Amino acid sequence: FISSYNLDCSGSFDVNSSTADEQVAESFIRQAMEIIVDEAVKKATNVQEKVCEWHSPEQLKKLLDLELRDGGEAESEILQRCRDAIRYSVKTSHPRFFNQLYAGMEPYSMVASFIAEAVKTNLYTYEVAPVFTLMEDAVLRKMIKVIGWEEGGDGIFNPGGSLSNMYAVNLARYRYCPDFKEVGMFSAPRLVILTSQECHYSISKGAALMGIGTKNVYTVPTDERGRMIPSALEEKIMLAKSEGAVPFMVNATAGTTVLGAFDPIDEIADICEKHNLWLHVDACWGGAAIMSKKHKHLLKGIHRVDSVAWNPHKMLMASLQCSAFLVRDKTSLLQHCHSARASYLFQQDKFYDVSYDTGDKSVQCSRKPDAFKFWLMWKALGSRELEQRVDRALAMARYLAEEIKKREGFRLVLEPEYANVCFWYLPPSMRNLPESPELWKKLHTVAPVVKQRMMKKGSMMVGYQPLGEKANFFRMVVISPQVSRQDLDFVLNEIHNLGKDL
Amino acid sequence: FISSYNLDCSGSFDVNSSTADEQVAESFIRQAMEIIVDEAVKKATNVQEKVCEWHSPEQLKKLLDLELRDGGEAESEILQRCRDAIRYSVKTSHPRFFNQLYAGMEPYSMVASFIAEAVKTNLYTYEVAPVFTLMEDAVLRKMIKVIGWEEGGDGIFNPGGSLSNMYAVNLARYRYCPDFKEVGMFSAPRLVILTSQECHYSISKGAALMGIGTKNVYTVPTDERGRMIPSALEEKIMLAKSEGAVPFMVNATAGTTVLGAFDPIDEIADICEKHNLWLHVDACWGGAAIMSKKHKHLLKGIHRVDSVAWNPHKMLMASLQCSAFLVRDKTSLLQHCHSARASYLFQQDKFYDVSYDTGDKSVQCSRKPDAFKFWLMWKALGSRELEQRVDRALAMARYLAEEIKKREGFRLVLEPEYANVCFWYLPPSMRNLPESPELWKKLHTVAPVVKQRMMKKGSMMVGYQPLGEKANFFRMVVISPQVSRQDLDFVLNEIHNLGKDL
Repeated sequence: FISSYNLDCSGSFDVNSSTADEQVAESFIRQAMEIIVDEAVKKATNVQEKVCEWHSPEQLKKLLDLELRDGGEAESEILQRCRDAIRYSVKTSHPRFFNQLYAGMEPYSMVASFIAEAVKTNLYTYEVAPVFTLMEDAVLRKMIKVIGWEEGGDGIFNPGGSLSNMYAVNLARYRYCPDFKEVGMFSAPRLVILTSQECHYSISKGAALMGIGTKNVYTVPTDERGRMIPSALEEKIMLAKSEGAVPFMVNATAGTTVLGAFDPIDEIADICEKHNLWLHVDACWGGAAIMSKKHKHLLKGIHRVDSVAWNPHKMLMASLQCSAFLVRDKTSLLQHCHSARASYLFQQDKFYDVSYDTGDKSVQCSRKPDAFKFWLMWKALGSRELEQRVDRALAMARYLAEEIKKREGFRLVLEPEYANVCFWYLPPSMRNLPESPELWKKLHTVAPVVKQRMMKKGSMMVGYQPLGEKANFFRMVVISPQVSRQDLDFVLNEIHNLGKDL
Repeated sequence: FISSYNLDCSGSFDVNSSTADEQVAESFIRQAMEIIVDEAVKKATNVQEKVCEWHSPEQLKKLLDLELRDGGEAESEILQRCRDAIRYSVKTSHPRFFNQLYAGMEPYSMVASFIAEAVKTNLYTYEVAPVFTLMEDAVLRKMIKVIGWEEGGDGIFNPGGSLSNMYAVNLARYRYCPDFKEVGMFSAPRLVILTSQECHYSISKGAALMGIGTKNVYTVPTDERGRMIPSALEEKIMLAKSEGAVPFMVNATAGTTVLGAFDPIDEIADICEKHNLWLHVDACWGGAAIMSKKHKHLLKGIHRVDSVAWNPHKMLMASLQCSAFLVRDKTSLLQHCHSARASYLFQQDKFYDVSYDTGDKSVQCSRKPDAFKFWLMWKALGSRELEQRVDRALAMARYLAEEIKKREGFRLVLEPEYANVCFWYLPPSMRNLPESPELWKKLHTVAPVVKQRMMKKGSMMVGYQPLGEKANFFRMVVISPQVSRQDLDFVLNEIHNLGKDL
């Protein structure tokens, strides 16, 4: 049999021996790691280097030679492709990268992410992920403790805060009526989610995905600082009830994306208690404040809420992605709401305590061990250094806001209460124009041009956006400990230099 | 101001200069990389080493010292934690790991995953992920070409095949009635999904999450090989219609999780055309067959379907996770169905072609550049070597099945048509018992004990499960090119050695 079998399969492969060459693989990995350290760590964080080397999609396509072919390429070519992938990528670890709510190089978390990739496993059973299962549990427990849920709770790490917010909607819906899991929403009363008009878009994406519908997300007006107005929340709840709809959850945002506003959790919790509504806090961005004695007041009342989404990959700098969903419930709601009891994976006749097989709490099957990235970083830094990371980020925001107030042509959108510093830059030609719709219309065009110029120059990356009726403005967020006052001065000087002729 | 400011912030941090020490970080990363190569690459793939070092959750908790404290730890301690995390993790790259539908070490994809982690960005805008945006596009186009959608299509990489299957449900629902996105399912007719009884559990998890309900997933009977019976599908469609429900999509599985069965796509496509139903193929596991001229017949008809989920992280060995969702539609259905048009991220007044900002196609916000892992691997290996990877895996399955037929005490559950080899092991004490419910009841207890023993010994990992009325059986899947015939002989010998006294 064997010989005829080999004959049958001859040429292309050989079942008699391994066709993998481990020495070639190891040598390739070592060389690639050198490239990663040189290009993606050292060079990428060097302030003398560019933040990005801008090319249009059409140019970059040519530079990268994207086509996938029948034949493979030599090791040296692949190593060059590694260099190129890094070279043409944006350097988000660079001290002049301020474009998103993540930035900077975090060595412990980065190493943990490398280990997670190398170990290559899924977090569904203890059997295949014993270490990461326990680490996820430890991290979740610690986060629950920090939140202040004295009786404990449950949780899970998800691929991004949007999913975490969707978990909240699903759990709230399940608590309202567990039957929906089986029968769907077809004969259900119209369910309504309440959230502020400044909330993250994942709430409406979730409502669409989950069969609730974007129109059944009722947006509550915010005050001049972007915070939900509790009395307006109650009005919207009454409105929904008067329409015969069923409000079932409120989403409060702790740290809105643009302004960094914190909805008043304590007051919202009072209203939710009164109306028996699930209260979720989207603290993906603002959750970090809870690590700081000085700033945790922003989240006052969080110990009273039903669930929290918190992304350590934002201000705390864990590697992407690292997003926790936490729930105060102690009745295995997460498990009941999501479980499908697949017998091929979650066998009940295993020889260990299968309560450690946490995969059925998830709507995913494959799931990455993201908690490990936060765990290793926390071990290395301790809570104290995480606290300093938050305090420093907010001190930087304070410094930047004061600088903006002092400089001609710069105008704060509002006083920052968190790390978001939002401001307009008025080129000299606009500074003496009267406050009018024409001025704002002109000003609206400034940020996109300044952004284009900074990217083409590669000097820095700062985000901009409009907000409601407000013309395009810049949003600066300092996260990385590598950033110093000099970098912030540079940003303001550079915006002026790039935009002064407009 | 400056001096008073520094005073205010004194002690804990200093805004005047960077508090990050790049040299310390670089040195740490270099040392950790050495550990990763030594422990997670060399040692983890060495057949002389154990697949796993088994400890119960309670024992392992003590070994790992999981607690997170106020103070941080020294570099040497953190490096030891890295070693320990690898040491106590299961070695999924080991040639004796056969427990899941992923296995083996793939150096190119692993390096790509390291780069993705080091570069640290999100795949929502071209602005922050220019390289990965283009690579995702290139990989999706190539996959679409391989599938045979001559007029093209669209797609996106998701964190796992479960999400991809849910995307299919959402798109099918959106095509049936776009209004559901806004108004939800409350006044909708009862929607029904049809899928085989052997389908992956993500279909029912998705139905629950999306407000359709698990009871509205109608399961279609399968034949003796686990394949959906087309006539039974049509009966179920008629049944749903007769109940006044609206069948709107069929999920066909190409490569079921346990048996590796392929639903007959061509025949199912005929039925879907007749009844105007969206046809999705869950080819997460079986999609790889399309790379092989010899085995692509398993997916005959796939060019006719509406959408496909295909995970290159399974048989093709891309790093976890690497899951593509592909859709034949050319009308931007993915965008229309999922978009929320967040103005802070998807500004329309950017200076480049914003059709390259693909993030609004996703239900996520943060999204990893998983396509890069497949792209780099494909560049290095070429389509031809990917084809050989598939052909070799299936030849290995063939070899194993023949061996099982030759060996006393081993019995195939069915002839494999793909890479899944399912079999019972009967210890000598059971071999002469008459075929009876008692025998099967006894046999049901064998696999869990053998599994326990192999894990405690660390000699190998092979999965087992029941299926319907079938008693627990082993499922072997060979993926890694490092596995040779000797490893398969070892598996069978070892099962006998571990179970012969039962």
